[in-house]
Amino acid sequence: MKTLKRIAVDMDGVLADTDAHYLTWYYNAYGVNIPYEQMLGKPEGEGFPEKDAIRNFILSPGFFRTLPVIPGAVETIKELMKDFEIYIVSAAMEFPLSLPEKYEWLQEHFPFIAWNNIVFCGDKSIINADYMIDDHPKNLDKFKGVTIMFNAAHNANITHHQRVRSWAEVLDLLKAAECSVD
Amino acid sequence: MKTLKRIAVDMDGVLADTDAHYLTWYYNAYGVNIPYEQMLGKPEGEGFPEKDAIRNFILSPGFFRTLPVIPGAVETIKELMKDFEIYIVSAAMEFPLSLPEKYEWLQEHFPFIAWNNIVFCGDKSIINADYMIDDHPKNLDKFKGVTIMFNAAHNANITHHQRVRSWAEVLDLLKAAECSVD
Repeated sequence: MKTLKRIAVDMDGVLADTDAHYLTWYYNAYGVNIPYEQMLGKPEGEGFPEKDAIRNFILSPGFFRTLPVIPGAVETIKELMKDFEIYIVSAAMEFPLSLPEKYEWLQEHFPFIAWNNIVFCGDKSIINADYMIDDHPKNLDKFKGVTIMFNAAHNANITHHQRVRSWAEVLDLLKAAECSVD
Repeated sequence: MKTLKRIAVDMDGVLADTDAHYLTWYYNAYGVNIPYEQMLGKPEGEGFPEKDAIRNFILSPGFFRTLPVIPGAVETIKELMKDFEIYIVSAAMEFPLSLPEKYEWLQEHFPFIAWNNIVFCGDKSIINADYMIDDHPKNLDKFKGVTIMFNAAHNANITHHQRVRSWAEVLDLLKAAECSVD
């Protein structure tokens, strides 16, 4: 039996569209439409006139539970599960109130992911996998396998990881990678 | 700077005395004192007259929050943190209701463990560390580093991992291991 390669897939910014959610919640709270471009290249939460707004949203009940799914994520993960072992790996410990919400969100949108394959952690250097898909360079930098950086406003200026801009690109990249190995 | 070796430490049966808790909860529910010996060498939950009792306890609110700490765990973890990187790694995803309870339990008894160093997972083969302390052979069997099996009733007949019977023994073992490396 062939041993499947393992992919560690982040949640926020990769499966869940945190950037879109920030803009929606900001509009709902302050009645101001912030253009996406205003977040480009800035740490998450900066680029908004109200300094603590994003942190307050993140700490609000319901924020993680109501995140929109990034288009193509569900279909691509299902497709990848034919050739890879998929682990969902989220740095959820930073916001412990998010733990049940993140679990419920996965149950709703990715019910085909077994509990065995879900990891809520802090520092991701504890993760042993072949590929890591993440939007945060701090997580990718310490990873010993192949890194794939999912495009997000905050990582706009980062160039030292392979960037993907959609789940269609993830699929193409991983299929090509596996073909070149076989 | 010396890179510290990393220890993945399980919660249930290693930091928390699940065996004692099973007996207490059983007595409180059924008024029957089960001798510890009756659990020896049997999968967790077996050895009790009421077949589903332990599973029902585990699914009850408060079970994980009220677990007693295994004697010496707090002091030894503090001591080990001088020479090792300690990660608490619990297979909490099997019982998602336990997630907030386990987090709160750690906050109460091990407040010196940072959120970065807590992992709630399913399958522990995703964990990258040098040592793993666990009571379940199924977790230790897949681990690539050094395994240490914490004594528990259910693992009484397992002989293929180094057994420790107390946190004092863990400390002795790890100090000796590190001295022989240096």
